[in-house]
Amino acid sequence: MMELLKVDTVEQVMKKMEDYFKDLVLEGQEIHIADALGRILYEDVEAPLELPEFRRSTVDGYAVLAKDTFGASEGLPTFLNNIGKVEMGKSTELIVNSGECVYVPTGGMLPSGTDAMVMIEHAEHLDELTLAVYQSVAPGENVMQVGEDIQKGEILLKRGRKIKAQDIGALAALGIEKITVFERPKVAVLSTGDEIVDPFSKVQLGQIRDINTYALSAMIEEFGGEIVHRLVIQDEYNQLKEKAAEVLKDCHVLVISGGSSVGTKDVTAKVINDLGTPGVFVHGIAIKPGKPTIIGKTNHKAVFGLPGHPVSAIIVCKVFLGYLLDRLQAQEAGEHKTIYAAAAANIHSSPGKETYQMVILEDQNGEYLAKPIHGKSGAITLLTKAHGYIRIDTNKEGIEKGEKVKVVLF
Amino acid sequence: MMELLKVDTVEQVMKKMEDYFKDLVLEGQEIHIADALGRILYEDVEAPLELPEFRRSTVDGYAVLAKDTFGASEGLPTFLNNIGKVEMGKSTELIVNSGECVYVPTGGMLPSGTDAMVMIEHAEHLDELTLAVYQSVAPGENVMQVGEDIQKGEILLKRGRKIKAQDIGALAALGIEKITVFERPKVAVLSTGDEIVDPFSKVQLGQIRDINTYALSAMIEEFGGEIVHRLVIQDEYNQLKEKAAEVLKDCHVLVISGGSSVGTKDVTAKVINDLGTPGVFVHGIAIKPGKPTIIGKTNHKAVFGLPGHPVSAIIVCKVFLGYLLDRLQAQEAGEHKTIYAAAAANIHSSPGKETYQMVILEDQNGEYLAKPIHGKSGAITLLTKAHGYIRIDTNKEGIEKGEKVKVVLF
Repeated sequence: MMELLKVDTVEQVMKKMEDYFKDLVLEGQEIHIADALGRILYEDVEAPLELPEFRRSTVDGYAVLAKDTFGASEGLPTFLNNIGKVEMGKSTELIVNSGECVYVPTGGMLPSGTDAMVMIEHAEHLDELTLAVYQSVAPGENVMQVGEDIQKGEILLKRGRKIKAQDIGALAALGIEKITVFERPKVAVLSTGDEIVDPFSKVQLGQIRDINTYALSAMIEEFGGEIVHRLVIQDEYNQLKEKAAEVLKDCHVLVISGGSSVGTKDVTAKVINDLGTPGVFVHGIAIKPGKPTIIGKTNHKAVFGLPGHPVSAIIVCKVFLGYLLDRLQAQEAGEHKTIYAAAAANIHSSPGKETYQMVILEDQNGEYLAKPIHGKSGAITLLTKAHGYIRIDTNKEGIEKGEKVKVVLF
Repeated sequence: MMELLKVDTVEQVMKKMEDYFKDLVLEGQEIHIADALGRILYEDVEAPLELPEFRRSTVDGYAVLAKDTFGASEGLPTFLNNIGKVEMGKSTELIVNSGECVYVPTGGMLPSGTDAMVMIEHAEHLDELTLAVYQSVAPGENVMQVGEDIQKGEILLKRGRKIKAQDIGALAALGIEKITVFERPKVAVLSTGDEIVDPFSKVQLGQIRDINTYALSAMIEEFGGEIVHRLVIQDEYNQLKEKAAEVLKDCHVLVISGGSSVGTKDVTAKVINDLGTPGVFVHGIAIKPGKPTIIGKTNHKAVFGLPGHPVSAIIVCKVFLGYLLDRLQAQEAGEHKTIYAAAAANIHSSPGKETYQMVILEDQNGEYLAKPIHGKSGAITLLTKAHGYIRIDTNKEGIEKGEKVKVVLF
């Protein structure tokens, strides 16, 4: 029999996962930056060169020696000799002396001898050669110095970074074509239960459509995982053990979501224990919903036994599988979107259990209100209505209306 | 010459896009629910059946007539005849009369004649036939009624819904195998500029690596778009016109990001005008950064001329292309993640322009602080550091330290 009394708290479960799954590691995989959106960096990316690589003008105007312009004003302009122009995308060999200037477009290279840019609006050509400058500039003004954007060897992006569009831009700016990201964690999802049937077949009255393999697979994909197997199998020891052993070869994590029948959890636990050591190390978690969750390890792979109940299975998947997959991918804390809100009503919790309360968010003039929504156990549409959930701590006796809460967004 | 004085406000631009792009529509595409994560619904999904389809127990226990249990207590139990059990996943033909009960597992079907479930914890078998019930139940207690989760014909998910994992679960629960989502908006991205070179080739001093095609493509993919062409071409009228005409055949939206050279914007505008009517209808936007942005329409396609400057191009893409692609996909408002925060410092704005200020977020005991970060124009690493940005309204003179701000997250 499963020892339901020896349940762990959420904190204990996280700690155990840290310890047991220490040797469960993902490898790096080199990919082109054009394919990198949303992937997670396996190692820090250092700048292989400095940016900009040359002194770059940030305006359209004239490269000058700043001290030539000191004192210049509308009434008393400085006059400079315009000795040439720099073309975009071209290097310049020009050497500028005191009393001279050169036209440089935005993004163009400052010629040797100059140290500032006068904006085109603050200057006027009196003739082809002579430029009147009506405003003084300080050394470095309107100029981006070599390495000012990033220094060579500086860390651009850290291990665990989820690559955004602008990161891809910065990588291209540095001429970096390929980066090493985490391989996607490979996950197999099995649903067990004699009453579980293909949702798209003709269903007999009393039978339950398979929800979990679809919902859990999608959620795991959201976490960056790759689904390598997705199966519904009968609730029978030999069949489950055989299938589990087979799919474990191809994956890092095996998720078994049990049927609702009473004996299922025992079968799953027995299979995990019999497949390899150390077997099951979490026998139930002090949460609501999701208590009958088991977690084990067999031959360096993680195995989760989730409740068959879809709402429970989805919440447990979000919290605990999400945690493990994040850990495996060295995710930065706070990657998951959370929002602070005020509770719109009193919310009850279950004593001795961490409670996950589904909520709808309302934006009231820049203040989010979190409205608890309820549904009978098993109401799958509840999760389609919720914007997220609140975690109510084990030791907390519910939440009072108006209290500040943190909402984990779906 | 481009008429830079006739710039539009952000509001005017959004309004013009609404008007001009009314006839730019995406079609629906039928896909399997297993492929639906993150796709956007083209039409409402109605429940083709009710859930549950039978009266379902939410507990392990005994189906009873509630009135038989009225008055039952620890000291004075009600005695019932246990006439059978219901098996999971099976229909039941049993008919229960007053004084009788039937065992039903969680998720099992209630037999005819019963109207409530007594939890197993509140009952005891005295012998094989006789059950003592120690607590009364109300009619409907621990029972999910037919259609209580969702009614037949009720709308489960609305047009514009971005499909989440739990939605896929609900669709499976209803036996829905395929749904119609918006086809992905097809977008072509062209970078123009003689100084722009392949970022991974040997770059001459003074040349600029192509950042924009990579960064913009990734951002457009984030918006659900599909990149059908990605090219760098020379900053020359005939070449640009020819290429633009060619790629327009395959896409809904063409994005041309201009080089930094002065004449580029004129070339892009002329090409858009010459390709078809009505041509360019936005000649610059009162924003910072991103002012020299043009938007046009040619042969029922949208064409954007973005600044060549990567930071400006990325911000304009996020705000205006994001808006159009959302509109095309009937996105729910608020799909884009925003967070409220307190400004960590005074923030200046540009008079007469809507200013986009990059910020870093810090979580201070449940209160987010938005710290403005600055970089010289052209510093691409600025965007990799920012968590998001604040929009400062045209008519607002900056933001004071401590003021509440809305941060659009990257």
